[in-house]
Amino acid sequence: MAMTGVLRPGHAQIRVLDLEEALHFYRNVLGLVETGKDATGRHYFKGWDERDHHSVIIRQADRAGIDFFGFRVLDVATLNQLEKDLNAYGVKTERIPAGELLETGERVRFQAPTGHFFELYAEKTHVGNGSGLVNPAPWNPKTAEHGIAPIRMDHCLLYGPNIQANKDLFTKVLGFRVVEYVMAPDGEHTAAFFMSCSHKAHDIAFVEHPEPGKLHHISYRLESWERVLRAADIIGMNKVPVDISPTRHGVTRGTTIYAWDPSGNRFETFCGSYEPYPDWEPIKWTFDEFGYGLDHTTGKLHESFLTIVS
Amino acid sequence: MAMTGVLRPGHAQIRVLDLEEALHFYRNVLGLVETGKDATGRHYFKGWDERDHHSVIIRQADRAGIDFFGFRVLDVATLNQLEKDLNAYGVKTERIPAGELLETGERVRFQAPTGHFFELYAEKTHVGNGSGLVNPAPWNPKTAEHGIAPIRMDHCLLYGPNIQANKDLFTKVLGFRVVEYVMAPDGEHTAAFFMSCSHKAHDIAFVEHPEPGKLHHISYRLESWERVLRAADIIGMNKVPVDISPTRHGVTRGTTIYAWDPSGNRFETFCGSYEPYPDWEPIKWTFDEFGYGLDHTTGKLHESFLTIVS
Amino acid sequence: MAMTGVLRPGHAQIRVLDLEEALHFYRNVLGLVETGKDATGRHYFKGWDERDHHSVIIRQADRAGIDFFGFRVLDVATLNQLEKDLNAYGVKTERIPAGELLETGERVRFQAPTGHFFELYAEKTHVGNGSGLVNPAPWNPKTAEHGIAPIRMDHCLLYGPNIQANKDLFTKVLGFRVVEYVMAPDGEHTAAFFMSCSHKAHDIAFVEHPEPGKLHHISYRLESWERVLRAADIIGMNKVPVDISPTRHGVTRGTTIYAWDPSGNRFETFCGSYEPYPDWEPIKWTFDEFGYGLDHTTGKLHESFLTIVS
Amino acid sequence: MAMTGVLRPGHAQIRVLDLEEALHFYRNVLGLVETGKDATGRHYFKGWDERDHHSVIIRQADRAGIDFFGFRVLDVATLNQLEKDLNAYGVKTERIPAGELLETGERVRFQAPTGHFFELYAEKTHVGNGSGLVNPAPWNPKTAEHGIAPIRMDHCLLYGPNIQANKDLFTKVLGFRVVEYVMAPDGEHTAAFFMSCSHKAHDIAFVEHPEPGKLHHISYRLESWERVLRAADIIGMNKVPVDISPTRHGVTRGTTIYAWDPSGNRFETFCGSYEPYPDWEPIKWTFDEFGYGLDHTTGKLHESFLTIVS
Repeated sequence: MAMTGVLRPGHAQIRVLDLEEALHFYRNVLGLVETGKDATGRHYFKGWDERDHHSVIIRQADRAGIDFFGFRVLDVATLNQLEKDLNAYGVKTERIPAGELLETGERVRFQAPTGHFFELYAEKTHVGNGSGLVNPAPWNPKTAEHGIAPIRMDHCLLYGPNIQANKDLFTKVLGFRVVEYVMAPDGEHTAAFFMSCSHKAHDIAFVEHPEPGKLHHISYRLESWERVLRAADIIGMNKVPVDISPTRHGVTRGTTIYAWDPSGNRFETFCGSYEPYPDWEPIKWTFDEFGYGLDHTTGKLHESFLTIVS
Repeated sequence: MAMTGVLRPGHAQIRVLDLEEALHFYRNVLGLVETGKDATGRHYFKGWDERDHHSVIIRQADRAGIDFFGFRVLDVATLNQLEKDLNAYGVKTERIPAGELLETGERVRFQAPTGHFFELYAEKTHVGNGSGLVNPAPWNPKTAEHGIAPIRMDHCLLYGPNIQANKDLFTKVLGFRVVEYVMAPDGEHTAAFFMSCSHKAHDIAFVEHPEPGKLHHISYRLESWERVLRAADIIGMNKVPVDISPTRHGVTRGTTIYAWDPSGNRFETFCGSYEPYPDWEPIKWTFDEFGYGLDHTTGKLHESFLTIVS
Repeated sequence: MAMTGVLRPGHAQIRVLDLEEALHFYRNVLGLVETGKDATGRHYFKGWDERDHHSVIIRQADRAGIDFFGFRVLDVATLNQLEKDLNAYGVKTERIPAGELLETGERVRFQAPTGHFFELYAEKTHVGNGSGLVNPAPWNPKTAEHGIAPIRMDHCLLYGPNIQANKDLFTKVLGFRVVEYVMAPDGEHTAAFFMSCSHKAHDIAFVEHPEPGKLHHISYRLESWERVLRAADIIGMNKVPVDISPTRHGVTRGTTIYAWDPSGNRFETFCGSYEPYPDWEPIKWTFDEFGYGLDHTTGKLHESFLTIVS
Repeated sequence: MAMTGVLRPGHAQIRVLDLEEALHFYRNVLGLVETGKDATGRHYFKGWDERDHHSVIIRQADRAGIDFFGFRVLDVATLNQLEKDLNAYGVKTERIPAGELLETGERVRFQAPTGHFFELYAEKTHVGNGSGLVNPAPWNPKTAEHGIAPIRMDHCLLYGPNIQANKDLFTKVLGFRVVEYVMAPDGEHTAAFFMSCSHKAHDIAFVEHPEPGKLHHISYRLESWERVLRAADIIGMNKVPVDISPTRHGVTRGTTIYAWDPSGNRFETFCGSYEPYPDWEPIKWTFDEFGYGLDHTTGKLHESFLTIVS
């Protein structure tokens, strides 16, 4: 196969402070499709064009943030091999039994040097996008126009210490590569890595930060810049607190909005970007120009963006 | 005629601090089409799809701001009648001879209660958009894709005292009407009037402000929200100082960017909005919700937007 | 007032062959907002952003087509004056009493040389767009995303004999002007006039045709080219018969789709175009280049478009 | 690595009938970036955002069509392994020496059952997109707005006999998978396969056709539906012959235009689509609904599209 190993971001489990408020937000404002609720009270969601049963799980907790982020791998053989590779690299793994997450096979969990928990899994039930697999319509008015209605959960950006070690783990063991990176003010250390296991510009990103295990944002993909405006309008109609209003990123070239869910978990609605391949050399951002990397329109180093995490 | 009286914004004469820097900006960054230079050293520009010889004139001066804003009226008879009407209303007028602005007929100038100078004129040479009047192409790659390349100079927003008196003058004498207005924090006075002589949501707008004769921004119209992104990209590539990055206005519903020319004159690149008719009742914005009127995405009352003028 | 006389297209009464089928189409496919039904069985609709009670009326009949097309004028005094002007020009008029159309004042009806019935009226109840007149949201997800959901009924194109006489009537009496026109193959006669009473590129258009009183299409305005794609998708999902799939017009520069309602009345969903003013000279299309005037992408003279009317 | 084996379409060598005419078309209408000319008279082009030296090569010949289509593979080891795999599968291969195409390493060429020549290669000089690898601007006005200016050569559709055998070869040896397929009228045979080696909906497609080695189209990717309109406008301005004007495909969901280069080689300018992964089941189009698969707006089975090849 030309696509092997780790295929894509598969799920994020997010902690919310008030479940009812969160359910309204994820259902009607962000406009994800709700696909289930389990015995522990977790609610399951997906973007309208995802085939898998879910990509976002929310659970009530007393502090916001992310429990774990999962990647779908090619198949069970790959899962087993990657577990061996992780162990050989010195990373301890834990097997979570099939069914612990609804409609999901066995998961291999590990903690990365930045303190975040990651999971690999090879099986999750396909529920489709509602258009079926025979002569499908291009989109479904019921799901694609309810709330912001992203296509899919696309990637996340995580804050924690030791991102160089995360980068090594993800490149040496999991088959990721660095697509873009940002230099620290000292010009020697790397402040951020944007990494891909595909020809997306990022499947995951890490920013160096003293506290471990922090969530900067979960990103949701939209079809077009006009859908970014539509998202902005829905954000405004619902008075969702906004971090950065519509702009272009220099880094990855995506167009974007950053805002917070009612619990203070930042999310991004984004579109655009480009499609890098493994043979492409990574792009470097120097700190003095990183304002344009973050917000290409203004060049502004948004303090809130750089410092607030959950 | 169903369109009579004052037809449209016709020209703005803008003061710049450094002519060379300004010429580069208006030619290559904003991407207006330069159409002439007169004996006094003023340079003349137009949006690519304007037929008139010019809509923006820049001249070097020791402070930034606007000299005057002109409106094209239907014909010479209308010009003469409107002058009489102004005088009857108690407004003094001055005739500027034909040719004082290149390719422009006689102008009737007056000062409004806010301290701004306005002009009416009935004649300006049509130079066209370069596609001719027989079987024209829809746009011209040479002019429509050089710099931001607005279609036209669209309207301006002016700051000064006594906007209620301006509103009376423009409605009672010049045939404008209020399309939207913003209440002051006291809930009694009006802080801003958005006025139209057409079915545009605004041909001119006034904000109450203690200093007379101030320019808040000149607005340039783009074809689409995607052209707003393109403008944002060109602004970023040229490190143009930005006031408000791409967003939706609640007021008039336009999509917008605000930034400054090298002399500190704010400009807007905008698109969208709606088309109100004279029988439509005006829309009111209360001060407590005006954040969403200004920036519908974030609801933010941008301090710089509210206070910086030239 | 700077906008006087005839303000805008106000309503079209359309004949449909099967009311139930038509109701489904106008409600759920075209996505107009239904606002009433009268004692004669007529159903009333509006575009989501129209303030007037209605702009499209459908009634069951045994042949498709248009009963009449109405224009909103500034006020009752204007209505009375225009009736006198029509009579003085030799056009007979009929007064239709207030209330004959729901929520509509007295109408002045006349037949044009092409055989079409037109109406003028000064009063129709404002029902608004659902967002109110205080701090309104820019759009309403319930109405703006149900079916194609045009902003408004925008204009119509009518086929009949003697369009030169229509053009004279509309320019000399009703204050319209020709914005663009198309020459017949003989190079001497005019085959089509595109006329405006505003700064829209067309409020009405006429094509020379031997049969009187024919409807070519009713046009509905969309916000953007992306909404044209969305309309195309909804058209495809509903297998609506299509005449011309998405393209740019050379004439008026609009972007467009042409399709038919279930009774065979053609409709257009369009966007774009430009804003001409009364002082702009009209644009001429020669017959040899009219293929690019009709369909700027392909230059094709679509036979169906040129010949099928209802 | 998570992306392995065959990475992406790398180049197509196209035959043109009149080199000067073709050069004008590929440079100024399609707007590719010209990067070289070799001693045999071939001209080399790339899309503005491609990093590789070239993706399209044109050469003068007495009949139009495609000489060969090349895929970039991960590295030299992969190239060698894939050659062995091809040979083991019974496919003869030929080594083309490095440098035979400018800036390109050794190529492994083979003929597929449909009669087309394919190549694999592991090395081609990166010339970049002109923005560099440090703090790059998101696009370059010089290259991204000259002509249609696609991002990249994206895929091709080829006509020939035995597509089932091609499908087997590409899936069993080269790591591709079927993303969508179209059934023949008999409901038993497959008329078309759309195949991917990535998470693009198609990197190559085959249609069953009696003549071997035929080119249906080369496809070029654009950033947005608005860029598709811009392409349509440039096509119209240059009177490029058009096969299908802007529409949505049901198959792969892309938005598209089909037209012909001056030699009669069809090209597509497209955008949109979705991102399938290896675990996604393929989508099936039945012949009775294939009109909507081809042209989702109209459902039309365009005869020219189905039959004309070069």
